[in-house]
Amino acid sequence: MDYSSHHLGDLIDQLARLPGIGRKTAQRLAFHLLRVSREDALALARSIQRVREEVGQCRICGNIAETQPCHLCADPRRDPTLLCVVEQPADVVAVERVGSYRGLYHVLGGALSPLDGISPQNLRLRELEERLSSGEVTEVIVATNPTAQGEATAHFLAELLHGRGARVTRIARGVPVGSDLELSDQATLARALEGRRELD
Amino acid sequence: MDYSSHHLGDLIDQLARLPGIGRKTAQRLAFHLLRVSREDALALARSIQRVREEVGQCRICGNIAETQPCHLCADPRRDPTLLCVVEQPADVVAVERVGSYRGLYHVLGGALSPLDGISPQNLRLRELEERLSSGEVTEVIVATNPTAQGEATAHFLAELLHGRGARVTRIARGVPVGSDLELSDQATLARALEGRRELD
Repeated sequence: MDYSSHHLGDLIDQLARLPGIGRKTAQRLAFHLLRVSREDALALARSIQRVREEVGQCRICGNIAETQPCHLCADPRRDPTLLCVVEQPADVVAVERVGSYRGLYHVLGGALSPLDGISPQNLRLRELEERLSSGEVTEVIVATNPTAQGEATAHFLAELLHGRGARVTRIARGVPVGSDLELSDQATLARALEGRRELD
Repeated sequence: MDYSSHHLGDLIDQLARLPGIGRKTAQRLAFHLLRVSREDALALARSIQRVREEVGQCRICGNIAETQPCHLCADPRRDPTLLCVVEQPADVVAVERVGSYRGLYHVLGGALSPLDGISPQNLRLRELEERLSSGEVTEVIVATNPTAQGEATAHFLAELLHGRGARVTRIARGVPVGSDLELSDQATLARALEGRRELD
């Protein structure tokens, strides 16, 4: 494709490599970046640079962080007896958004997936075991994704952490709030039936 | 929203300002940029910078360009008697993609839109008149968008260029190739009927 500028063509290539961005969208974004003020375009470039240069990983929970430990691990108001185990930093954002969870987090950095070459040693499991060794944590909430990989990881964690003095719980799987039973897949509905609870 | 990193929050804000990118997509892209190799993330940042620092506007046609004049204006194989007038640089890409047009271009930089404050003096009209003054151009193909603003601009151009020695033509408007008559809007179908041609 001839863009009358190699730099523009290069930018379109780069943008098209982002997830969910096709070539048409990449082209629209690139022309947009040419049209906006120079300041706005360079602010985006600087922001990408800064994120890669100044954002690291909390050595305790594995979440992305600008400080050591991260502000969640360092917050004395968080309940240190509760540990929510998630796959990725984005999952911490999702749980925090709920607003009701006041415990700490542990980011595994992925889920077990033999086909993708992700085995237990690729996840932050040793760090998790270390955190449990102090005996302060009384419940580990496994909030890995409700996918085959996430479920396999949950089962692996249940076995790994068995007998370490903390309850290991799994977030409920069932029909999503606001959805339609008719449109629920079989596996979800089976989980919803299995996890039924007494109506108060 | 608490992202445990101000820089990440800032990047998400920046990405969410791009057209067609909502906050959820912005968040997904930002976490992606944290996950990919440092080189890949910084390559995108550099690419944005380079486009803004090294890409300019061709002084003849107004298209984006890294050289003066741009490689289209400088190409001796292009037909200098044909001039295709478009609104934006992206439109040049669209016409070039067809592959059959061998003339030159003139980018107006927009379309007349009194509500948005875009009047004739905001478009590259003086430059267009200058290009016609040599008498080399024999046909001006007005390829502004088939929108209210694009049509207004086309009519304005027809009047402006009347009597300058060049034919002023307008690209055909009609039912798009591969579409369904049933789904065509009234205005398009009216244009298609109006622009009907003899079947050979």
